Amino acid sequence: MMSSLQSLRQIISTFKSIPKFDRTMQHLKVISAGNGKVHCEMPVHDEHVNLQGGLHGGMSATLVDFVSTCALGTCENPRFGVSVDLNVSYTAAAAVGDTLTITSEVLKVGKTLGFATVDIKNQDGKLIATGRHTKFLSH
Amino acid sequence: MMSSLQSLRQIISTFKSIPKFDRTMQHLKVISAGNGKVHCEMPVHDEHVNLQGGLHGGMSATLVDFVSTCALGTCENPRFGVSVDLNVSYTAAAAVGDTLTITSEVLKVGKTLGFATVDIKNQDGKLIATGRHTKFLSH
Amino acid sequence: MMSSLQSLRQIISTFKSIPKFDRTMQHLKVISAGNGKVHCEMPVHDEHVNLQGGLHGGMSATLVDFVSTCALGTCENPRFGVSVDLNVSYTAAAAVGDTLTITSEVLKVGKTLGFATVDIKNQDGKLIATGRHTKFLSH
Amino acid sequence: MMSSLQSLRQIISTFKSIPKFDRTMQHLKVISAGNGKVHCEMPVHDEHVNLQGGLHGGMSATLVDFVSTCALGTCENPRFGVSVDLNVSYTAAAAVGDTLTITSEVLKVGKTLGFATVDIKNQDGKLIATGRHTKFLSH
Repeated sequence: MMSSLQSLRQIISTFKSIPKFDRTMQHLKVISAGNGKVHCEMPVHDEHVNLQGGLHGGMSATLVDFVSTCALGTCENPRFGVSVDLNVSYTAAAAVGDTLTITSEVLKVGKTLGFATVDIKNQDGKLIATGRHTKFLSH
Repeated sequence: MMSSLQSLRQIISTFKSIPKFDRTMQHLKVISAGNGKVHCEMPVHDEHVNLQGGLHGGMSATLVDFVSTCALGTCENPRFGVSVDLNVSYTAAAAVGDTLTITSEVLKVGKTLGFATVDIKNQDGKLIATGRHTKFLSH
Repeated sequence: MMSSLQSLRQIISTFKSIPKFDRTMQHLKVISAGNGKVHCEMPVHDEHVNLQGGLHGGMSATLVDFVSTCALGTCENPRFGVSVDLNVSYTAAAAVGDTLTITSEVLKVGKTLGFATVDIKNQDGKLIATGRHTKFLSH
Repeated sequence: MMSSLQSLRQIISTFKSIPKFDRTMQHLKVISAGNGKVHCEMPVHDEHVNLQGGLHGGMSATLVDFVSTCALGTCENPRFGVSVDLNVSYTAAAAVGDTLTITSEVLKVGKTLGFATVDIKNQDGKLIATGRHTKFLSH
């Protein structure tokens, strides 16, 4: 049986060759995953930034969405589901060449709802963005 | 002098050939734009959905980010800026083949902060997602 | 059988004599209620403001919570429930002597989740705050 | 010169005798405060709960608003200001007799914006609610 870490790495390894929105996550490297916590790294490339060269707000929101979904998937009896609410606060800029660390932690998993938080920092530990994601978990 | 509508269409027309995150917005058609309101349409393609075939939560968040930025850009003395806070509630699914209408309305533009709301509906008028975006406006 | 409007007015009329947090809503006048929409008015009193004399952010958040709950209660097969997510954007100040209009509209009621939006304006129609509320609906 | 801890305790000690919304915070005990972090405790009383006896969603939102404002006030060059955005996720119920711990941590203080996060837990360490608050800081 594969660990959460192996599963996530395998799923992400398929993203570069699929024509879906998850392709935006293809450069995400999962460093550790388990027990409701996921730690990733990602170098900022051209494809992640806006016309002004800063990490795109939609990219940060997608990282909050995806990495929190990964964290919820590492819980006991992992269940996937659909998004209910997502929020992001943007605290600093990041640019091409920066390396982001993205960490997510599950706050609560109930019968039908899961909550997780995500922090996005740069290589100096500066907080770039932080958000929360609430999901409806299917059985 | 170009109108807001012409300007937005011209900017978006460049997205298919630039290797930036804004490329995710390349299929957005601006129907009308002016006085703090923007109305767009977008067919859902493979590149907008997740592995299960539903409109990706990160794509919806990116639409909230981008179309609200467009709406803020149609105000008198348009000013661009950086994201402060963004939130999205996900109320229904959408799939490849659906055509989304995305409307944004500016709620307030002050000296340094702008607020706008965004609704994403399908071709039947069903609400798919709704969100708000707060931006810090530079001079 | 009482209408939504009568029920809401009756419930709120009890708030002045109960030592619960809902007492903060005792000055709310329901103007109309039905089919997922509620329209209220409330004069701003001393008890609603902060030390600087402005409408308290917690009071605005409580109005978003309560009036959206009322709106969800006016739907067919009204069901109450517990809060999942709530957000508020603060767009302008209000002070003692202002009269607020608070309107809420249900965005979606599903099997287990309900979403509603709330706008708080002053007597001049200026937007003071706007928010959304997601609730888990019990049976 | 008073410390942040002394100042906050003194301010809160006045709340029981002022007819303002801050009165809802009168039972808050500040345990520690400084360097962008505040730790409080509060017993849940009748005046904090809804008609069903659970901690009121508006009360939790007010705790997020107030305790984050306290945390921003403990930073170097403390500046107060006005709310921009606030959000809360509700993860578990609390009732009269519970003792809450409310902790807030500043995420970022810039030239004009401050961001802080707040966790509300019960006496068993269970997360009751969590939120973020963005403020516009005046000079």
